[in-house]
Amino acid sequence: MLRNQDQILSKIANNDGHGENSAFFDGWKAYDADPYHPTLNPNGVIQMGLAENQLSMDLVEEWVRNNPKASICTAEGASQFKDIAIYQDYHGLPEFRNAVARFMEKVRGNRVRFDPDRIVLSGGATGAQETLAFCLADPGDALLVPTPYYPGNDRDLTWRTGVELIPIVCDSSNDFKMTRDALETAYKKAQESNTKVKGLLLNNPSNPLGTVLDREALSMAMKFINDKNIHLICDEIYSATFFDEPGFISIAEIMQESPDSNPDLIHIVYSLSKDLGFPGFRVGILYSYNDAVVNCARKMSSFGLVSTQTQRLLAFMLSDDAFVEKFLAESAARLGARRGVLCGGLAQMGVGSLKGSAGLYCWMDLRRLLKAATFEAEMELWRVIVNDVRINVSPGASFHCSEPGWFRVCFANMDDETMRVALSRISKLVMQTNNSEAAAARKPCRRRSKLEISLSFKRMDEIMMSPHSPMTSPLVRTRT
Amino acid sequence: MLRNQDQILSKIANNDGHGENSAFFDGWKAYDADPYHPTLNPNGVIQMGLAENQLSMDLVEEWVRNNPKASICTAEGASQFKDIAIYQDYHGLPEFRNAVARFMEKVRGNRVRFDPDRIVLSGGATGAQETLAFCLADPGDALLVPTPYYPGNDRDLTWRTGVELIPIVCDSSNDFKMTRDALETAYKKAQESNTKVKGLLLNNPSNPLGTVLDREALSMAMKFINDKNIHLICDEIYSATFFDEPGFISIAEIMQESPDSNPDLIHIVYSLSKDLGFPGFRVGILYSYNDAVVNCARKMSSFGLVSTQTQRLLAFMLSDDAFVEKFLAESAARLGARRGVLCGGLAQMGVGSLKGSAGLYCWMDLRRLLKAATFEAEMELWRVIVNDVRINVSPGASFHCSEPGWFRVCFANMDDETMRVALSRISKLVMQTNNSEAAAARKPCRRRSKLEISLSFKRMDEIMMSPHSPMTSPLVRTRT
Repeated sequence: MLRNQDQILSKIANNDGHGENSAFFDGWKAYDADPYHPTLNPNGVIQMGLAENQLSMDLVEEWVRNNPKASICTAEGASQFKDIAIYQDYHGLPEFRNAVARFMEKVRGNRVRFDPDRIVLSGGATGAQETLAFCLADPGDALLVPTPYYPGNDRDLTWRTGVELIPIVCDSSNDFKMTRDALETAYKKAQESNTKVKGLLLNNPSNPLGTVLDREALSMAMKFINDKNIHLICDEIYSATFFDEPGFISIAEIMQESPDSNPDLIHIVYSLSKDLGFPGFRVGILYSYNDAVVNCARKMSSFGLVSTQTQRLLAFMLSDDAFVEKFLAESAARLGARRGVLCGGLAQMGVGSLKGSAGLYCWMDLRRLLKAATFEAEMELWRVIVNDVRINVSPGASFHCSEPGWFRVCFANMDDETMRVALSRISKLVMQTNNSEAAAARKPCRRRSKLEISLSFKRMDEIMMSPHSPMTSPLVRTRT
Repeated sequence: MLRNQDQILSKIANNDGHGENSAFFDGWKAYDADPYHPTLNPNGVIQMGLAENQLSMDLVEEWVRNNPKASICTAEGASQFKDIAIYQDYHGLPEFRNAVARFMEKVRGNRVRFDPDRIVLSGGATGAQETLAFCLADPGDALLVPTPYYPGNDRDLTWRTGVELIPIVCDSSNDFKMTRDALETAYKKAQESNTKVKGLLLNNPSNPLGTVLDREALSMAMKFINDKNIHLICDEIYSATFFDEPGFISIAEIMQESPDSNPDLIHIVYSLSKDLGFPGFRVGILYSYNDAVVNCARKMSSFGLVSTQTQRLLAFMLSDDAFVEKFLAESAARLGARRGVLCGGLAQMGVGSLKGSAGLYCWMDLRRLLKAATFEAEMELWRVIVNDVRINVSPGASFHCSEPGWFRVCFANMDDETMRVALSRISKLVMQTNNSEAAAARKPCRRRSKLEISLSFKRMDEIMMSPHSPMTSPLVRTRT
């Protein structure tokens, strides 16, 4: 039987543009193959590679129980089943778009307004990103994106569109901030290879950094894209995950303050997967200030609309002002406390992490644990972490980081006890490394002179027992 | 302010590949602008351009009320809210894929088996079609498709993929059946223009014809694609809408009976939008016998997954054997009865329609009402129907029909009373035409000699009052 797949399938089917051959996804597979469970599989892999917000789901469940009318599958709502099930207008339910617009405003402190008629639905942020790439760029055109960046961008923006991503190289010397110089360098590099740059993609708050862009950075980016007459895509899917100063500033605010900038160039990607924690519901939002993009993207939304059953539920939920305010405040408090547990625990082991105020992860600095300052050494350490330490974190290389030794560690997809076990495991890794380094130091020839040994770290058990441990935060304890 | 959209947007955004500039969609707009309502807007446009199955929704609503555990938004199901909301595996919920596979088997009389691991989720059939085009063909490659065909195919399969559709010309001389000659002619034409043909797209049951492909036609198609080593995409989204002999035969049955055919070439597109009547839920299914396509399409499903809230509900619903059997039987009976009302009513006016046994529409023959046998005349008549008769039907030209004068008329998206009003309106159109023809015939110079006048039609009011009218079918009356 003829099975010459290469010839009968498309080039897209035969290439690896999906990007699944990456440590980012390999780590997920390692977890899937042997998932940790406190009693059933206590030696399994702990999943810290998934940016999922599970810390406030009890609030949502409570709301759902108290609002049976919001669903078309309850005695109170079933009379609406037919009208909702047959609604397939690609504009989406008006009440849903209104509710999403208001929610986006609340997340931004009501400092900006969003027009529900500019809200386009898509299948998750994944679909929104691809839709924008299809609208803005032709195959071979490029978008600039600062490193490190979310690995899914390669799949979402380039795989089926033929668009390219060109990295803007950022590094730890200035806490991975994007400078105008770095932007110009990337732009120039594209020009030199005759690649047409159609836009700049920013992710704010940043995944994987956990940082937010400040007003200066956003204004600089806004000026740059206006100077070059290229698009600015702002991926703001983590906008409600900030829990500390500096707070989140949306590109929408900068636009309001920049009367000379061209609104046709500005587009926001949003989702309810991270801020509310509903990735399964596949709610993606594309908000554009460009009428032609709104019209075109709306037609494309036929390829990935949000289920009207879900639209209807969320229209009710997001219209409940009291619930939304409570959720946003409580969620931020719990995320902040949880990050405190992780980063505080790491700090006490002598492991640093980039200062951050948002996101569902921290950017952990394991440079001193590398055998050499190379990505091979990073991968070697990563294998130890996944296979021996038994936690899945994501190595910087999978985020196109320019510097080896950084790892993204997710902290909001588990309960307190699992976090405690994870910290304990990391602690053992650090201790082993320190011990072997100390042994090496006692030898005449010290092989890794650049590595500094933190002698001040405590054993994890001590940290956990301390009354000052962030694990005892009352905010964390309010979780069910 | 610079607003040079053509330059800053993509070619896709600037072309009209979406196909919205068609009478098919213009008719929807005419309805949207002035929708009929029996009391609030009795002179509004009646929507007969929408293939929607609303006739059995009472059964679904009853099931939903009786099965609160199926929903994660009821007291009985809310404890599952978190697990369902965070599930984002692109394989889909295993219980959902199992239930869909079993449902697809039941619809096909349990004569074939479907493997749940070959079921790939997508955002409606729209997303499934595009995904297949991305997997199977490169830009510039072509798929053959018999005419008349669903206008959305142009958007779904070609707009963002760059793939082309090449028509296989069918006509009324043999009831629009696809012959091997017609297939070979289309294939040869593609070769002559140096276009690589990658597949054949069949829609069975057919939209807009309302007919099913018989065993001979399916076997012929199967042999053709194996001879040419090209793909066969079978769009079977209307598979459960058949209500009469000849029954529906799936390509899956033919495949089972053709051990020499290459399974790597066979792909089925499915959806729950038509068979169950849930277009708003955006449940698309791609079923491929080709492992590489399953793997690639599954990765692409990230762009348009089905909401897990909806997956969970439908997993329960489709697993309820008693409900599924009752629904399929009752839905078929109601669809058949409703088609009888429409086609019977038309026949009594002297208006013919293609004999059909499936679908949510009939293929109405208004050739004798055309001023000339041209598509201009068809469009002129269509404008009269939409603007004066005040019903939206879809002209054959929008389905790439090769012969002017055919119109698709949908019958399952309205209640009995609206159907009565619609028939009454069509009756007036036919009477007016007949009267003016009769007047013309009395003049010495008869201008349109080819048009035959049916003198046997009755006034619509008479039809409606007749005890033999299909409007009085008890099956129709069981509807709420």
